[in-house]
Amino acid sequence: MALKGNAVVGQSGGPTAVINSSLAGVIEEALEYPEIHSVYGGAHGVLGMLEEDFIDLGRQDPSVIRGLRSTPSAALGSCRHKVSPEDCRRLVEVFRRYNIRYFFYIGGNDSADTSNKVSRAAREAGYDLAVVAVPKTIDNDLAVTDHSPGYGSVARWLATAVRDAGLDTEAIGVVDTVKIVEVMGRNAGWITAATALARDHEDAAPHLIYLPERPFGAERFLADVKAVYDRLGHVVVTVCEGLRDETGTYVTASSRTIDTDRFGHRQLGGVGDFLCSLVAAELKLKARHDKPGTIQRVSAALASPVDLEEAYEVGRHAVRCATEGIVDKMAIIVRRPGPRYEVEMGTVELDVVANAEKLVPAEFIGESGNDVTQAFIDYASPLIGGPLPAYTRLERIPLERVHVRA
Amino acid sequence: MALKGNAVVGQSGGPTAVINSSLAGVIEEALEYPEIHSVYGGAHGVLGMLEEDFIDLGRQDPSVIRGLRSTPSAALGSCRHKVSPEDCRRLVEVFRRYNIRYFFYIGGNDSADTSNKVSRAAREAGYDLAVVAVPKTIDNDLAVTDHSPGYGSVARWLATAVRDAGLDTEAIGVVDTVKIVEVMGRNAGWITAATALARDHEDAAPHLIYLPERPFGAERFLADVKAVYDRLGHVVVTVCEGLRDETGTYVTASSRTIDTDRFGHRQLGGVGDFLCSLVAAELKLKARHDKPGTIQRVSAALASPVDLEEAYEVGRHAVRCATEGIVDKMAIIVRRPGPRYEVEMGTVELDVVANAEKLVPAEFIGESGNDVTQAFIDYASPLIGGPLPAYTRLERIPLERVHVRA
Repeated sequence: MALKGNAVVGQSGGPTAVINSSLAGVIEEALEYPEIHSVYGGAHGVLGMLEEDFIDLGRQDPSVIRGLRSTPSAALGSCRHKVSPEDCRRLVEVFRRYNIRYFFYIGGNDSADTSNKVSRAAREAGYDLAVVAVPKTIDNDLAVTDHSPGYGSVARWLATAVRDAGLDTEAIGVVDTVKIVEVMGRNAGWITAATALARDHEDAAPHLIYLPERPFGAERFLADVKAVYDRLGHVVVTVCEGLRDETGTYVTASSRTIDTDRFGHRQLGGVGDFLCSLVAAELKLKARHDKPGTIQRVSAALASPVDLEEAYEVGRHAVRCATEGIVDKMAIIVRRPGPRYEVEMGTVELDVVANAEKLVPAEFIGESGNDVTQAFIDYASPLIGGPLPAYTRLERIPLERVHVRA
Repeated sequence: MALKGNAVVGQSGGPTAVINSSLAGVIEEALEYPEIHSVYGGAHGVLGMLEEDFIDLGRQDPSVIRGLRSTPSAALGSCRHKVSPEDCRRLVEVFRRYNIRYFFYIGGNDSADTSNKVSRAAREAGYDLAVVAVPKTIDNDLAVTDHSPGYGSVARWLATAVRDAGLDTEAIGVVDTVKIVEVMGRNAGWITAATALARDHEDAAPHLIYLPERPFGAERFLADVKAVYDRLGHVVVTVCEGLRDETGTYVTASSRTIDTDRFGHRQLGGVGDFLCSLVAAELKLKARHDKPGTIQRVSAALASPVDLEEAYEVGRHAVRCATEGIVDKMAIIVRRPGPRYEVEMGTVELDVVANAEKLVPAEFIGESGNDVTQAFIDYASPLIGGPLPAYTRLERIPLERVHVRA
């Protein structure tokens, strides 16, 4: 029998274009169950819950909840807080005071870890609490789930941006010859790989794609850029912010010390700038870099409709699971076998997803180490929710009549 | 009487979201006049014309020309080429060989200068040539015209991106507290100013806006950031890539020498990175920067419909002028007086626009030097083609019943 009491939901980690869609799914589904009395939102994830900073989500105007499905970023506020054992005990105490029996946490693997620890603390305190996590990360590095809500949208954003940047470079390559687009993703190259979806013809950008799953070598990179330049006269490269060389040293860090040790940990970024300098110095080609940064992850205008819908459904699924006693799980997306893209919702143990990191597998990375495979394209294409809008290209029609006067 | 012969059109300078819309306007209008026999496109502006690298634009499928109106970047290819007297003589010679009597050049002030020089060379050679330039620059720094095609679209892109980045920072400000968005514009702050259009409520991003029209002072900047942080707990700043200090030194250049003298001129960019370091060092706040770079200028998905339409119309107007003998002009956009946004097409002498640079005037810059005025908002709002899509915000509704068990 389902637990009777209130539910709380929180958002954690980096904001995305669709994390509010998951929030809407949790809220709307939870309001369907009589055993769930009220639905509370914790401000800034567990940080707000620790301070009893709750808002009533059940009494929002329904149009506000509906509007969440097209509003980017984290409407409840987010956090990156590693819970201590003391935090967990305190959370259970707060939950008991507010008769909170359902805990839904939307986030990545750190959030799954938090959910897991809170669940354990509740058990230790003899407090019945249904815990289900909802997946969210643009990085797409969560284990077991076919993909993570947030990924399809950042993939669509970047595919669009890199296609546009490619046309830009093709047009002005006589001046600005090499373009390097620096993409988010830390240790996982999923987002960078998705820039391959920009291509709509054989010579289209990106011409080179470097993932952190392969050690980065400057010599090889320069030879790759040179080869594309010799063939096309312009080059668009996409690189993951987390590129590392053979020794495991971040490519950015080797050139800049300013970002390290600010707060005891290294801030990524800067690899695009560094590679531009390398290209200019070694190949004598003018290079520019674009670093769209956080803008890439929270664009509602270019969000993937598939991603938005799945994010909503996986939120709803988490609530269904919790009310059916399927707890200590993260709700996930399972891709059905077959040529047509179809998914169903499933679950995975929190333990499994909590501290794992799913990197881009070898079969998705080209042998050359500077591109992705067709298998990756087949995997990622459905996630961006349909093809990009068609652009036109002028035909190189020669002049009709020879007007030339000798 | 209108000249009889062929027309040539070229694109020059940085690509934009709407320069192809102007190209479509030139082509479609030119095909209406019997005195214009054929319409040629020069590849990469005057560079291609010098090498007789022409394509026939009149024989493209009409759907291709129509498609240009929603295709970003420069479909003919662009260039940044400062024509020599020898180049100009050579161009007139080529035009004569191909019976080209109409020269339409789409670009900024450098392109107006090129047009002017080519026109003079034709006159000196006794060759009748109708020259009309078509305005294009995201920088919005062309003289006399109310605004430049390309500006409304980059403004819409940035307003959207900064609004999204603002929601992102508001959500995760407990971790990543200060966001600095580095915006294009060289010496003119028009694009940076347009980020103010992101605001949809009083405390919305951007909280601080720094234009190159005002000397940048680090002390003042840090005090500004601190004040916003103390009030809101997070800060979004937009800065122009071309910020300079009181001595006229680029703020970026003072911290990095790597980008200077690569090819004899200084590449801008890096100010966002520098200011992040400054904030971290002096205020002990974590700061990140986004540098969307060229991506901001060529987005078809977020192009302003007003901008697309005006770019098309100003292209058509240039052809109309040329056939009516109104030559050695740049076609421009004239805003009609009155509360409703209405424009008509006009012209300005090439001489006037060729080497002028229109900076953001004092009445558009807040007295504090870190914001724009309402007069600027009134000027820029119509250009982005309608309000940004509405987002939803959760209401801070307190919990309905006190379930708390003491």
